[in-house]
Amino acid sequence: MLIVPEGLIAGLVSAEDAFAAVEAVFAAMSRGEAYNFDVVREALGEGRQYGFKSGLDRAGGQLGVKAGGYFPGNAAHGIINHQSTVFLFDPETGQPVAMVGGGLLTALRTAAASAISIDRLARRDARVLGMVGAGHQAGFQLRAAARVRDFERVIAWNLHPEMLDRLGAIAAELGLPFEAVPLERMVEADVIVTITSSPAASLLDRHVAPGTHLACMGTDTRGKQEVEPALLGRASVFADEIAQSVSIGEAQHAVAAGLLDATAITPLGDVITGRHPGRRSDDEITLFDGTGVGLQDLAVAAMAVRRAVERGQGSVVEI
Amino acid sequence: MLIVPEGLIAGLVSAEDAFAAVEAVFAAMSRGEAYNFDVVREALGEGRQYGFKSGLDRAGGQLGVKAGGYFPGNAAHGIINHQSTVFLFDPETGQPVAMVGGGLLTALRTAAASAISIDRLARRDARVLGMVGAGHQAGFQLRAAARVRDFERVIAWNLHPEMLDRLGAIAAELGLPFEAVPLERMVEADVIVTITSSPAASLLDRHVAPGTHLACMGTDTRGKQEVEPALLGRASVFADEIAQSVSIGEAQHAVAAGLLDATAITPLGDVITGRHPGRRSDDEITLFDGTGVGLQDLAVAAMAVRRAVERGQGSVVEI
Repeated sequence: MLIVPEGLIAGLVSAEDAFAAVEAVFAAMSRGEAYNFDVVREALGEGRQYGFKSGLDRAGGQLGVKAGGYFPGNAAHGIINHQSTVFLFDPETGQPVAMVGGGLLTALRTAAASAISIDRLARRDARVLGMVGAGHQAGFQLRAAARVRDFERVIAWNLHPEMLDRLGAIAAELGLPFEAVPLERMVEADVIVTITSSPAASLLDRHVAPGTHLACMGTDTRGKQEVEPALLGRASVFADEIAQSVSIGEAQHAVAAGLLDATAITPLGDVITGRHPGRRSDDEITLFDGTGVGLQDLAVAAMAVRRAVERGQGSVVEI
Repeated sequence: MLIVPEGLIAGLVSAEDAFAAVEAVFAAMSRGEAYNFDVVREALGEGRQYGFKSGLDRAGGQLGVKAGGYFPGNAAHGIINHQSTVFLFDPETGQPVAMVGGGLLTALRTAAASAISIDRLARRDARVLGMVGAGHQAGFQLRAAARVRDFERVIAWNLHPEMLDRLGAIAAELGLPFEAVPLERMVEADVIVTITSSPAASLLDRHVAPGTHLACMGTDTRGKQEVEPALLGRASVFADEIAQSVSIGEAQHAVAAGLLDATAITPLGDVITGRHPGRRSDDEITLFDGTGVGLQDLAVAAMAVRRAVERGQGSVVEI
């Protein structure tokens, strides 16, 4: 099998590659050719989380699993807190095919999902991008969003305002004016990306103007929450996978509050395949609940493997 | 991380090693220091099965997953139908530690579990070993059973009698007289190991004499069945893990038929740690429902890794 270590990924998979790979697998999910297996997620104590996301993509010929989690004590020892590795198997024989470092790939596939939602659901004339959250992943989101719309400026909010400078530097690199704002000013945004690890809603219903597209990318487990549930009640809600959206995604809260029914949520893949028309009017609020599915991980890992094979990179080991 | 390929396992882990490793992890489960995560098991179509068994052993310092499955089309291409690989992670940091070939280890840990059950639950004076099933795994079971009791002879039954010759050869190697018998003659056995992949009961209640110990090792998924449910109704039932026993193990059928309650099943680890006395009389029928848990896989894989490190075997790769 082929080992593609974390250090090679940046040279193998671009944001554009991730966009194409994730779009293809969302479409395969919509056509019923790919599906995610049950997520395993365990609290190991002392804030450590560990789990697996896995699936089968018949169309793309992928079977595999991402194993990993969050280990908050790592930073003190100079190790990254988020640890993940993707393992790919041959869906015909079950034999291990590749092991791929999953850190950068996770960031790329998450940013790709929000960019795909913006590409498919935001107004064509969107000019103001709002960012809620300014952690490591926010930079990937900002870069990916900037590739799919001609934004004229970026406004941003973060619980810890001192972290906004780094996001501002990325906006400057993209040639976009950047302004730190209170949440009330998010009404100026045409597209809002939320990417926090908040346990309670930051962005409220009244902070969002008609016609906005929201990509809610931070809520991936029970108990996390980024936006007021009422917002999901008045928005057209889309998700990477409905089962995850209502159980561990942003929609969990609106469903629990009786403001949203699972049957009202549309898989983003249905917009890609044309089964759903997407945005219907300039006043409609569209909201993408991006929980992160295993098939996204497999799709970008498979692209890394293809590139590594083409270029003779990585190392082959017997197992 | 360390790669320990399948080809090295036979030289690294013996049946005795597997017995010690599995006994230690069953005890850790009994003490609440180790637990299995939810099993993921998926039908991929055309008879192919794929899944994960995983867990955390705080006592042994193991976190990991066995990925693999059954791919019935493999044999036609000269590949083994059962495919599995064990991945170990550092429970403190989440970093990948090792990847270990899981084929032989699966056979060893399954045989170890039934041998532990015989060691702890069969009568000390057990003399006749009954084998139901004669596939590849049956040989491992027979060898492991012969190490824990002084059997004088082996009687065996298999749906396809022509497969019994191979099992007979293993008995001969162990110096044990071997006889192919109809199921009715299993009443002569003091210990019976069932290791089939049958969809319906072979061994009936009337085939089992008082005082017998049964190790039912073949049923590891919904829809498989080896023995008549009434047998579990009159036996003292033990299991590697109760949750698996009642959902995918042999006990699923007796529980569904109202002949057995989950609360009446004892974890085998409780006998090892002394929380349960084990066999109470010479007339009692004891039955071990061995479903195979992820922690067994981690325990034997960890032993393979320790030995490989000591001996400088396997290969180190960057991930």
